[in-house]
Amino acid sequence: MTEQQHGEQFDVVVVGGGAIGENVADRAGRTGLRVALVEHGLVGGECSYFACMPSKALLRPGGALAAARAVPGAAGAVSGGVDAAAAFAWRDETTHGWDDSSQVAWLDSTGITLLRGHARFVGPRTLEIAGGDAPRRVQARHAVVLATGSWPVMPDIPGLADVEPWTSRDATSAHAVPPRLLVLGGGVVGVEMATAYTELGSQVTLVVRGPRPLAGAESFAGDQVVTALRERGARVLLGSEVASVQKTPTGIAVTVTGDGAGTVEVDRVLVAAGRRPGTTELGVETIGLEPGRPIQVDDALCATGVDGGWLFAAGDVTGRTGTTHQGKYDARVAGDVVAARFGGEDDGRAAESGAKPWSRFRASADHQSVPQVVFSHPEVAWVGLTEAGARQAGLDVQVVDYDLADIAGASVFAKDYTGQGRLVVDRARGVVVGATFVGPEVAEMLHAATIAVVGEVPLDRLWHAVPAYPTVSEVWLRFLESAGL
Amino acid sequence: MTEQQHGEQFDVVVVGGGAIGENVADRAGRTGLRVALVEHGLVGGECSYFACMPSKALLRPGGALAAARAVPGAAGAVSGGVDAAAAFAWRDETTHGWDDSSQVAWLDSTGITLLRGHARFVGPRTLEIAGGDAPRRVQARHAVVLATGSWPVMPDIPGLADVEPWTSRDATSAHAVPPRLLVLGGGVVGVEMATAYTELGSQVTLVVRGPRPLAGAESFAGDQVVTALRERGARVLLGSEVASVQKTPTGIAVTVTGDGAGTVEVDRVLVAAGRRPGTTELGVETIGLEPGRPIQVDDALCATGVDGGWLFAAGDVTGRTGTTHQGKYDARVAGDVVAARFGGEDDGRAAESGAKPWSRFRASADHQSVPQVVFSHPEVAWVGLTEAGARQAGLDVQVVDYDLADIAGASVFAKDYTGQGRLVVDRARGVVVGATFVGPEVAEMLHAATIAVVGEVPLDRLWHAVPAYPTVSEVWLRFLESAGL
Repeated sequence: MTEQQHGEQFDVVVVGGGAIGENVADRAGRTGLRVALVEHGLVGGECSYFACMPSKALLRPGGALAAARAVPGAAGAVSGGVDAAAAFAWRDETTHGWDDSSQVAWLDSTGITLLRGHARFVGPRTLEIAGGDAPRRVQARHAVVLATGSWPVMPDIPGLADVEPWTSRDATSAHAVPPRLLVLGGGVVGVEMATAYTELGSQVTLVVRGPRPLAGAESFAGDQVVTALRERGARVLLGSEVASVQKTPTGIAVTVTGDGAGTVEVDRVLVAAGRRPGTTELGVETIGLEPGRPIQVDDALCATGVDGGWLFAAGDVTGRTGTTHQGKYDARVAGDVVAARFGGEDDGRAAESGAKPWSRFRASADHQSVPQVVFSHPEVAWVGLTEAGARQAGLDVQVVDYDLADIAGASVFAKDYTGQGRLVVDRARGVVVGATFVGPEVAEMLHAATIAVVGEVPLDRLWHAVPAYPTVSEVWLRFLESAGL
Repeated sequence: MTEQQHGEQFDVVVVGGGAIGENVADRAGRTGLRVALVEHGLVGGECSYFACMPSKALLRPGGALAAARAVPGAAGAVSGGVDAAAAFAWRDETTHGWDDSSQVAWLDSTGITLLRGHARFVGPRTLEIAGGDAPRRVQARHAVVLATGSWPVMPDIPGLADVEPWTSRDATSAHAVPPRLLVLGGGVVGVEMATAYTELGSQVTLVVRGPRPLAGAESFAGDQVVTALRERGARVLLGSEVASVQKTPTGIAVTVTGDGAGTVEVDRVLVAAGRRPGTTELGVETIGLEPGRPIQVDDALCATGVDGGWLFAAGDVTGRTGTTHQGKYDARVAGDVVAARFGGEDDGRAAESGAKPWSRFRASADHQSVPQVVFSHPEVAWVGLTEAGARQAGLDVQVVDYDLADIAGASVFAKDYTGQGRLVVDRARGVVVGATFVGPEVAEMLHAATIAVVGEVPLDRLWHAVPAYPTVSEVWLRFLESAGL
């Protein structure tokens, strides 16, 4: 075949220029491989512009004010709530006004070639890129890595499409607060946006299918979030579903069935009902995969459904994890595997090392210690297994619960501190396999648990890790005392 | 000898009913030993009533307001500063109005006998208790544990004694703010009280002998604290000493020598110039020890200067560590050792186990991982070795610095986040031996480092401990990337 038929050649082509693709490309290029990164939208992707960063910017003002209001001596200096216009302006700053030039400049500095446009397979290792600077065909000499993320699911609810529903992108990039907002879905996005818009001044109704939101977390987490949302004036309908949606002269009438059955009139509906992998427009059928399905990968992030070991994937598109940080972790592993296998490092050594847990060529943490933080108020942070998950895994489980309000450090952090901590211990090995914290600003407490889980630090060694007094982290001492040490 | 001469017998007598003594007594009693606790003041001690708790209560309002002011969307709702009266009232609440009945009730529930009064040795294992309910003599059948803490040093400065200087106790229990306050000393107490009283509305002058406060910390910590204090309107005189103090018609004239030489007129002087061990009034000369000196102990907290293995000590009185949390850790070890050696557990096993590092009968962490948090604004938190300490210990040191302002999670926590992180790595073993964080509310970030240090978790395993995005803890990823992973 000629160069004409092959198109332009790169050693590695990464499809998707979000945080995941950027990390794959960066690390894959470290052994001298020539790497291209394909992106049709903003370089930096969902997380920078439409998810983590803007959502956190919208949530932080309400959290900071609540924290100050909870402290005698500070409370008197606080009057009124979040200034929505100022919060939106700050959000605009954190997203650089949806301008990706700083991230493009970073790419340029690394030697990665940015190809603007939509990529679509036309055969193994060969992609056509359309809709960008100019249509072109590129071929990956060694590897293609998919990092195309995920897209919101739009449920098939009668009338929904006619009312211009928001997805998470609209909620995080809005410049006005709907007076009445219905949030459909009790996952992380639903809970965070219900919290943010309540604090921004909207009358929020959160509709949750199950008995509580945050189904993947310990049940007390979702329960405490519901209590707090209701205290702040939100309406939370549990065990409920949206049956239909209809425009009215004064807004949108939403018919709810289930435990919260009735009709709610709102001005906007936010759909936060899950996400599907970004594999529909990729031409994966030409390489034997099914569009709309996640790309199945092994622990080296190498696709299991394609022969030849040339296809990799990382992030949401794999269905493996659903967070930026864990996707970036997978991206680092994928990039290192690609760099080692194809870029001059000893392939055998990488493969051998990759066979061992906790090698840098193996994403071991995905199975044991995925952290998740929900920046609601209270914040919810967990890592590893929940009690239910640990029992399901057949472990001999010891559960240690501690009311964070009983920690001295919590009592001087806020007057009526409310929170809860749980440690899940594998009795057989004497190590922590999961931890959950719920409370104001507990997000930064999580990494201690993550290190304990990943490091498999035995409880009797953790006994010597002294938490500083009076911090909320002193719960670690109480956990261990409660566990019998 | 008769019972008359021996006095009342206990298996174990603990002298000092602060947090340290309480913990020793509690754990020593777990194998059935009969334990007495001697306290002349408030049960719960310095930390509960005059140190950690009240100081944190006075510091938290200013911290919470500063945090809210730093967030666009929240800042507009904050006007004015800390309400001193409300802060003092809250401080009164956290100290239960200096009433120890809840702690006495806890003691009662454990079966420990509380003896009110001052204890003084009259011979080995024999103490006289005076000034309490009734003078009495008690004898410890097995062990005496000293947990008498420490007392502020009053430097010999001309005129100082005549102006009723405050010690830390006065500063933390005050009910009015001196319009002008001079703080003498740049240790933890000096820095915390300079911060608190600045925020409570006092014009504070902090006099520091060295080039910066917090001499035991990495130098950037003290430097950032000085910058922040000055920004808040405090005057900080570095490289300076107080030469003399004199009453004037309008206040107190303080003559300063050194780099900040001059005269400062204030309304009150707070002396925070260090502490000495509480061994002056104990009659330790009758058991061969020197009053005023710390009680030297081994890693089982057993005194090395007394034969027979019956004398133990924990907390500030040992000169080993100067914090409540580390003193409590020593207390747990001491209590467990006493319970095992004298209370029916296999003595041999405890001794053998105590010979191993990280046994629960050996306070190994005192040498490797003492955490310290300064609740100034910014907060300063460190554990283990500083760079200088690691080099002095002869380690092959890798220092990894990271500007916390460059962490995405920091940029959405506060608009102009200022902070710094440092990891100190022992290259030979590939483990973290020290870490320092400076920034708003970094206190809860410390325990992750403490677990990493104590767990001796290798860097290449820490690589799999994924920090959640966007938290400030993501600095761990940056640390590791900067370290070459």
